[in-house]
Amino acid sequence: MDHGLIAIGAGIAIAIAAGLAALGIGTAAGKAFDAMARQPEMSGRIQGLLFVAIVFIEACAIYALVVSLLLIFVF
Amino acid sequence: MDHGLIAIGAGIAIAIAAGLAALGIGTAAGKAFDAMARQPEMSGRIQGLLFVAIVFIEACAIYALVVSLLLIFVF
Amino acid sequence: MDHGLIAIGAGIAIAIAAGLAALGIGTAAGKAFDAMARQPEMSGRIQGLLFVAIVFIEACAIYALVVSLLLIFVF
Amino acid sequence: MDHGLIAIGAGIAIAIAAGLAALGIGTAAGKAFDAMARQPEMSGRIQGLLFVAIVFIEACAIYALVVSLLLIFVF
Amino acid sequence: MDHGLIAIGAGIAIAIAAGLAALGIGTAAGKAFDAMARQPEMSGRIQGLLFVAIVFIEACAIYALVVSLLLIFVF
Amino acid sequence: MDHGLIAIGAGIAIAIAAGLAALGIGTAAGKAFDAMARQPEMSGRIQGLLFVAIVFIEACAIYALVVSLLLIFVF
Amino acid sequence: MDHGLIAIGAGIAIAIAAGLAALGIGTAAGKAFDAMARQPEMSGRIQGLLFVAIVFIEACAIYALVVSLLLIFVF
Amino acid sequence: MDHGLIAIGAGIAIAIAAGLAALGIGTAAGKAFDAMARQPEMSGRIQGLLFVAIVFIEACAIYALVVSLLLIFVF
Amino acid sequence: MDHGLIAIGAGIAIAIAAGLAALGIGTAAGKAFDAMARQPEMSGRIQGLLFVAIVFIEACAIYALVVSLLLIFVF
Amino acid sequence: MDHGLIAIGAGIAIAIAAGLAALGIGTAAGKAFDAMARQPEMSGRIQGLLFVAIVFIEACAIYALVVSLLLIFVF
Amino acid sequence: MDHGLIAIGAGIAIAIAAGLAALGIGTAAGKAFDAMARQPEMSGRIQGLLFVAIVFIEACAIYALVVSLLLIFVF
Amino acid sequence: MDHGLIAIGAGIAIAIAAGLAALGIGTAAGKAFDAMARQPEMSGRIQGLLFVAIVFIEACAIYALVVSLLLIFVF
Amino acid sequence: MDHGLIAIGAGIAIAIAAGLAALGIGTAAGKAFDAMARQPEMSGRIQGLLFVAIVFIEACAIYALVVSLLLIFVF
Amino acid sequence: MDHGLIAIGAGIAIAIAAGLAALGIGTAAGKAFDAMARQPEMSGRIQGLLFVAIVFIEACAIYALVVSLLLIFVF
Repeated sequence: MDHGLIAIGAGIAIAIAAGLAALGIGTAAGKAFDAMARQPEMSGRIQGLLFVAIVFIEACAIYALVVSLLLIFVF
Repeated sequence: MDHGLIAIGAGIAIAIAAGLAALGIGTAAGKAFDAMARQPEMSGRIQGLLFVAIVFIEACAIYALVVSLLLIFVF
Repeated sequence: MDHGLIAIGAGIAIAIAAGLAALGIGTAAGKAFDAMARQPEMSGRIQGLLFVAIVFIEACAIYALVVSLLLIFVF
Repeated sequence: MDHGLIAIGAGIAIAIAAGLAALGIGTAAGKAFDAMARQPEMSGRIQGLLFVAIVFIEACAIYALVVSLLLIFVF
Repeated sequence: MDHGLIAIGAGIAIAIAAGLAALGIGTAAGKAFDAMARQPEMSGRIQGLLFVAIVFIEACAIYALVVSLLLIFVF
Repeated sequence: MDHGLIAIGAGIAIAIAAGLAALGIGTAAGKAFDAMARQPEMSGRIQGLLFVAIVFIEACAIYALVVSLLLIFVF
Repeated sequence: MDHGLIAIGAGIAIAIAAGLAALGIGTAAGKAFDAMARQPEMSGRIQGLLFVAIVFIEACAIYALVVSLLLIFVF
Repeated sequence: MDHGLIAIGAGIAIAIAAGLAALGIGTAAGKAFDAMARQPEMSGRIQGLLFVAIVFIEACAIYALVVSLLLIFVF
Repeated sequence: MDHGLIAIGAGIAIAIAAGLAALGIGTAAGKAFDAMARQPEMSGRIQGLLFVAIVFIEACAIYALVVSLLLIFVF
Repeated sequence: MDHGLIAIGAGIAIAIAAGLAALGIGTAAGKAFDAMARQPEMSGRIQGLLFVAIVFIEACAIYALVVSLLLIFVF
Repeated sequence: MDHGLIAIGAGIAIAIAAGLAALGIGTAAGKAFDAMARQPEMSGRIQGLLFVAIVFIEACAIYALVVSLLLIFVF
Repeated sequence: MDHGLIAIGAGIAIAIAAGLAALGIGTAAGKAFDAMARQPEMSGRIQGLLFVAIVFIEACAIYALVVSLLLIFVF
Repeated sequence: MDHGLIAIGAGIAIAIAAGLAALGIGTAAGKAFDAMARQPEMSGRIQGLLFVAIVFIEACAIYALVVSLLLIFVF
Repeated sequence: MDHGLIAIGAGIAIAIAAGLAALGIGTAAGKAFDAMARQPEMSGRIQGLLFVAIVFIEACAIYALVVSLLLIFVF
């Protein structure tokens, strides 16, 4: 039964982390569009920060992807 | 029972990640429409950023798809 | 018991992903109607982007459908 | 026990997908009524887009229905 | 135990789908009343669209009813 | 154990569907009162549509009741 | 174990349905008070409709009560 | 194990129904205070309707209490 | 195992009912303070109704307490 | 296993009831501060009612504490 | 297995109660800061009441702590 | 299996309590910043009260930490 | 099975506590940005308090980390 | 079964922590964009604080990553 439970562990790991990361990107991008529409001359700086935020959010998803792949191939 | 648990792991992985990614795209796009309606002259830049955000969100769903396919074919 | 668990895995995969994708389309379309009503002259561009968003959201549901069919027929 | 678990899988698949699709249609239609009341002269275009959105949402429910019937009759 | 699990599957299928469909009709109708009160001269078109939305929502509940009856009588 | 699981299936079916249908009626009626208070001269049409909505919502609860009784008496 | 599971089924049936019905009555009545305070001359009609809504909501709870009693005495 | 499961069924039945009924009374009463503060001359009629709503909500809790006692003493 | 399950049943019964009743009292009292601050001359009547609402909410908690004690001492 | 399950029952009983009671006190007190800030001359009466509400909320937590201690020492 | 289940009971008891109590203190304190900022001359009385509310909320957490320690040391 | 269940109990205890305490500190601090921005001359008193609130919230987390360590080292 | 359950305990402990702590920091920081934008001359004091709040929130996550490491290395 | 349960523990640990951390970054960044749009001259300081907040949030995700890797490689 070990094999099956490892698969479930890997599945849960990527599922919740990637899903919530996607929601987080959606929230941050949505707020950024909102802020740009209100203050167009700030759009350059906001765009830059949005990319930074997306990168850090993706990093969280990558952590889970790494754990997930480790569980599948190494464990 | 291993075979069955792997299938559940693969199912959960794509289900939650793809579903929340879809919600995230919906949120981001909805906020983008909102911002465009308020500041039409910003619509070019917002449209570009929306595509970037969608690409990063889809990336999260793809991570889960990869894990899911790995669980089905390789594991 | 393998057969039954695979069926549950396939069921969960399409259920959550398709359901949340439907909610996401509903949210995006609802916000688009809102934005069109406030800025009618932007309705062409918003309509185009809405189709793009729906396509990407449907893609997420399709990922889950593919995994689900793979689990039923191939696994 | 296989037979019973397949039934549960089919039940979950259609239950969550159809339920959330119904909620999604309700949300989209509700927002459309709202937008029509605010901008009556846009009601033709919004009505058209509402049908498109409903069709895509129903498609998600149909995916789950197909999986559900496959689980009952073919699997 | 098969018989019992099939009953649970049929129960879940109709329970969640019909319940959420009922909530969806309530939401759509509530928003429609709201819109009619704000724009009485649009009430004819909104009423028509409300019936269309209700029909599509009921369709989702019917899908689940069909699956539920199939599970009880055919499976 | 079959007998007991069928009872749980029947219980879940009517519980969730009837409960959410009751919430749906509450939501729709609440919004209808709201709309009537804002636009008294529309109250006739809204009252009519409210009954239509309630009938369709009750229909969803009836579907679940039918499944529930089928599970108890026929299955 | 059949006897015990039937009791749980009956308990769940009445618990969720009656609880959500109570919440629904609370919501509808609360909105009705709100509407009466804003438009006192509509209070007669709203009061009448509130009773209709409460009756339909109670009907949902009664459905579950019937199923619950059937499970206890007949099943 | 029958005895214990019946106790759990009775416990769940009264717990959820009575708890949500209490929440429902709280919501309805809270909205009633609100409405009275805005339209003091309607307070007599609202007070009367509040008692009616509370009675119907308590009825839901009583249904669950009856089922709960039946499960304990008769079942 | 009967003894232990009865204890869990009694625990759940009082836990959820008493907890939600406490939340309900908090909501009702909070709205009452709000209404009093807006319409000080109504504070006598609101205070009276608040006690009535609290009494009915406590009644719900008492129902669950009775069931809980019955499960512990009589069952 | 009886001993352990009784401990879980006692733990759940006090956990949910005391936790939600604490939330209820927080809500009621928060709304009271709000009302006092808006209508300082009502602060005496509101303070008195707040104590009454807190006492009734604590009563709910005490019910659960009693059941919890009964389960530990008497059951 | 008794020993382990008692530990879980003690863990749940303190976890949920202490966590929700912490949230309740946060809510009450947050609303108190809000009220002080709007009506600085009431800050003395609000500060006093805030301490009273915190004490009663802590009391709820203490109840759970007592039950938790009883379960660990006495039970 | 005792050893493992004790670990789960200790894990749940600290997890939920510390997590919700962190959320509570975040809420209280956030509201405090808000209040300071609106009424700068009250910032001294609010800062003092914020520390008091944080201390009481941390106390809740400490209770759970104590229970958790007791479960690990003493139980 | 002890070894595995300890791992799950350690996983849950850090998962929920660290996740909610991250949410808490996000909330507090978000509110701080908001307050700074409204009252720039308070930004020094708010920044200081934000660090204090973050430190206390991190402390909660550290408690869970300590418990988690104790479970892995010592238990 | 130990091996499988450790994998599930590692999966849960990174999943929930990384996911909620991603949501937290999204919230904080979204609020920061909002604040920058309202007060452009504060954008330097807000940007700095945003990085500090993101670092502390990432720290929470790192804690969970460390526990997760420890569970996989050392435990």
